Amino acid sequence: MSVSYSRLDVVGIGNALVDVLSYETYELVAELGLTPGAMTLIDTARAEELYAAMGPGVEISGGSAANTLAGVASLGGRAAFVGRVADDQLGVVFGHDIRAAGVEFTNKPASGGDPSGRCLIIVTPDAQRTMNTYLGASAQLGPADVDHELVARAQVLYLEGYLWDEPAAKDAYRLAARTAHDAGNRVAFTLSDSFCVERHREEFVHLIEHEVDVLFANEAEITSLYEVTDFDDALQHVKNHCEIAALTRSEKGAVVVTRDEVHVIDAHPVATLVDTTGAGDLFAAGFLFGLTHGYPLGTAGQLGALAAAEVISHIGARPEASLAELARPLLRG
Amino acid sequence: MSVSYSRLDVVGIGNALVDVLSYETYELVAELGLTPGAMTLIDTARAEELYAAMGPGVEISGGSAANTLAGVASLGGRAAFVGRVADDQLGVVFGHDIRAAGVEFTNKPASGGDPSGRCLIIVTPDAQRTMNTYLGASAQLGPADVDHELVARAQVLYLEGYLWDEPAAKDAYRLAARTAHDAGNRVAFTLSDSFCVERHREEFVHLIEHEVDVLFANEAEITSLYEVTDFDDALQHVKNHCEIAALTRSEKGAVVVTRDEVHVIDAHPVATLVDTTGAGDLFAAGFLFGLTHGYPLGTAGQLGALAAAEVISHIGARPEASLAELARPLLRG
Repeated sequence: MSVSYSRLDVVGIGNALVDVLSYETYELVAELGLTPGAMTLIDTARAEELYAAMGPGVEISGGSAANTLAGVASLGGRAAFVGRVADDQLGVVFGHDIRAAGVEFTNKPASGGDPSGRCLIIVTPDAQRTMNTYLGASAQLGPADVDHELVARAQVLYLEGYLWDEPAAKDAYRLAARTAHDAGNRVAFTLSDSFCVERHREEFVHLIEHEVDVLFANEAEITSLYEVTDFDDALQHVKNHCEIAALTRSEKGAVVVTRDEVHVIDAHPVATLVDTTGAGDLFAAGFLFGLTHGYPLGTAGQLGALAAAEVISHIGARPEASLAELARPLLRG
Repeated sequence: MSVSYSRLDVVGIGNALVDVLSYETYELVAELGLTPGAMTLIDTARAEELYAAMGPGVEISGGSAANTLAGVASLGGRAAFVGRVADDQLGVVFGHDIRAAGVEFTNKPASGGDPSGRCLIIVTPDAQRTMNTYLGASAQLGPADVDHELVARAQVLYLEGYLWDEPAAKDAYRLAARTAHDAGNRVAFTLSDSFCVERHREEFVHLIEHEVDVLFANEAEITSLYEVTDFDDALQHVKNHCEIAALTRSEKGAVVVTRDEVHVIDAHPVATLVDTTGAGDLFAAGFLFGLTHGYPLGTAGQLGALAAAEVISHIGARPEASLAELARPLLRG
């Protein structure tokens, strides 16, 4: 095996999951007691119950940070992923797909513990996704899984808020963030989900003030974080708390704000909205590609909007088309 | 567990496979030495080689006869499947998906042998699919896997030509066919693939003359069977050899022929051709639904064309939409 010590654009740490998607009615979401649009952690028994209630599915590799890195690679960036799968068939699928997407992934599959994680995703007729995550092997993600040499090589370390749901993963994050900062790199963070924000609000606020350089959040997450109802109120809070905040608002586009700059980015047109899974992940991909390739923040935001538009036009949370091709007109200017 | 002894429309025996699909270039198909459009059996080493060369994939339950039964169920028919998976994650996926499609599937997953089978499918820009099947646990499908009570319950026993590639599966077929005929039911058979026909031509010709009541074949398969170049020549041969032959010709539609009747069926319009995987399987589904529900042969052919058109408009070899809904205008007449 050849080892490369070249510079990376983005290294991400996140849950390694295979998505199991099926189209269902609003009625089934209600019957199953699910919160539409949310991500809920589930145990084995609940996973079996939900899977039994779901129709025929499609399996596609997912995981929030992993999707973002696949997007960075699709744009032509150099990306690496840190995560934990088991040595089972879903682990093989996850490993194949992320490497086939051009992302470096060197963690060895774990033996003898829980099976690889999966996310049962119900997509309703409005293209909204409701996610139920059985973490499995990913729940044991800890400091030992982080290759600090890999982290030091990347301009940006990218982390999921979802990691906060598991104490060992949080420790992995803290160590990795220190490595990144010691190497002079930036730390980027996504709030992941508004329910995740509710679970960890205080820690997230502290983190954003003291450790995060680039923050990603959607409207529900950022207003939940600061316990305000108005997007603009949240904007005023976050503006002074981290170097760059990229706030997404679905069809209303996005706002990118720093202490000195503000950019209002329109949503990119979408021919047919099919499945919103991965919209936020791919916005982060486009933005991080722009940021690590020296583009102005406004262009980075437009790259985010373009990547998000591609991923919501088909089923699955990773790009199907070459984002580098799609972005060519934007980057030529 | 409640056991139902009610009458079934179709019981099928076939390889239980999960499809792994990826979009690739014509160049990759050539580089890998694959025959475009063919189904090739592969071993573990070749499966690993091909998978490594493929891009990020999508996993969807497949298997020729299993797809047909999912189609029969989607039309509102009562269907059952006989096949063999291992007790692994792909086996769970296959079992979930076929039951969730409304198909009875009672075979217990096998322990300790080969893993569940899969079909590595490369889809090229012309929507053509090239299939590479690692049979795994399905290669051991044998007489012990066939529930003869189940077979006796169905109006039609449906079999894949692919089963001829494994001797034990062939034995399973012979026993099941005897059970079906003894119970006064029909035996339907698909030639599956022109390369499969080349491998088993003599046996297939004999089978069609003596055991098969309803034959499904596409143009390449039926001309290969009789070693003729012209479709009409093949038609004259088959006309006198089995009760009903349903011959499909892709965009040219289909011809349904018996000793006394002939029906020329137009292809059903397709908005966007995405992936031809499952076209033949779903034609058989529509036709068998029509046949087992007392519709005239011409209508049965139209149902086949309609079901095939649905499945080639998206990725994967099983219907996404309700075929019963789509067929309503046709059956109202």
